[in-house]
Amino acid sequence: MGTALDKTTVVAALPAVLKHDYRDAMARLGAAVNVITTDGPGGRAGFTASAVCSVTDEPPTLLVCLNRAASVYEAFRSNGVVCVNVLAHGQEALSNLFGGKTPIDERFAAAHWHTETTGAPVLDGALVSFDCRVVDSSQVGTHDILFCEVLAIRHGEQGKGLMYFERGYHALGA
Amino acid sequence: MGTALDKTTVVAALPAVLKHDYRDAMARLGAAVNVITTDGPGGRAGFTASAVCSVTDEPPTLLVCLNRAASVYEAFRSNGVVCVNVLAHGQEALSNLFGGKTPIDERFAAAHWHTETTGAPVLDGALVSFDCRVVDSSQVGTHDILFCEVLAIRHGEQGKGLMYFERGYHALGA
Repeated sequence: MGTALDKTTVVAALPAVLKHDYRDAMARLGAAVNVITTDGPGGRAGFTASAVCSVTDEPPTLLVCLNRAASVYEAFRSNGVVCVNVLAHGQEALSNLFGGKTPIDERFAAAHWHTETTGAPVLDGALVSFDCRVVDSSQVGTHDILFCEVLAIRHGEQGKGLMYFERGYHALGA
Repeated sequence: MGTALDKTTVVAALPAVLKHDYRDAMARLGAAVNVITTDGPGGRAGFTASAVCSVTDEPPTLLVCLNRAASVYEAFRSNGVVCVNVLAHGQEALSNLFGGKTPIDERFAAAHWHTETTGAPVLDGALVSFDCRVVDSSQVGTHDILFCEVLAIRHGEQGKGLMYFERGYHALGA
């Protein structure tokens, strides 16, 4: 017990790593590229994100990390619904569009969309889409982590996934 | 306002998708494969996970999803430190070993390790390793989400990443 407390104290006193060292290291953790969308009383919005992962399948729940300083933040908070559209290799331009400063209507005009259960835009041509309701969230530093229960799934094209790794796009799969 | 509440009610009443449909869909979201380790008063432990992502770089923080029913759960909870070792292509056997039922000592005997700041085992030969202190956690269904501040980074080999996609291993990168 004494050992545990001593160790915790020592670790807590150490400085964290520098931001740019962390970003360089995170560039080595490959991740799928997704366009995350919402619609509802807060308006339609969407952004590109790789910080998405599965949490549990009881009930099917995933998480999305969202910067509270992002221009789309308020729309996501007030709508309470999200669709995670997993991009296919070849959709790099759409990733760039939703990851940049382009006005929202121009982003959406670049692709075809429909809706499933929640009303959040579902991307035609995504590898797969998860239509979700936000059931909880946590604040960690600059970001909110949105916990999202999956209410509908739309399977799209077969094909390779679009991944981001070492600060560039790559294809994944056979 | 009335519209927003009506919409929320309708969405909340819908059933979630089936577990096996969710797992089939999640197989299309490619993810990096990591061996997550810990050591301390709760003992040494480690498991394979793809549910890892970056949360924020202020301060550098990532998250790891951990099943509360996992055999390693108590060790992680009581130690409060984790190392995320991002696997390189070619480390599939290590991934399988840490993802299976092999006793902990046999898992660790299959590779070389050292320590950095927290005492959690750092894998020699990983693409990159994040040595972390758990600063917070959230419970969602069957899982805990561990929020981990990064205290040290160890850059390993250059090379391709090991990804899991469509229920198989793949190489990622040039």
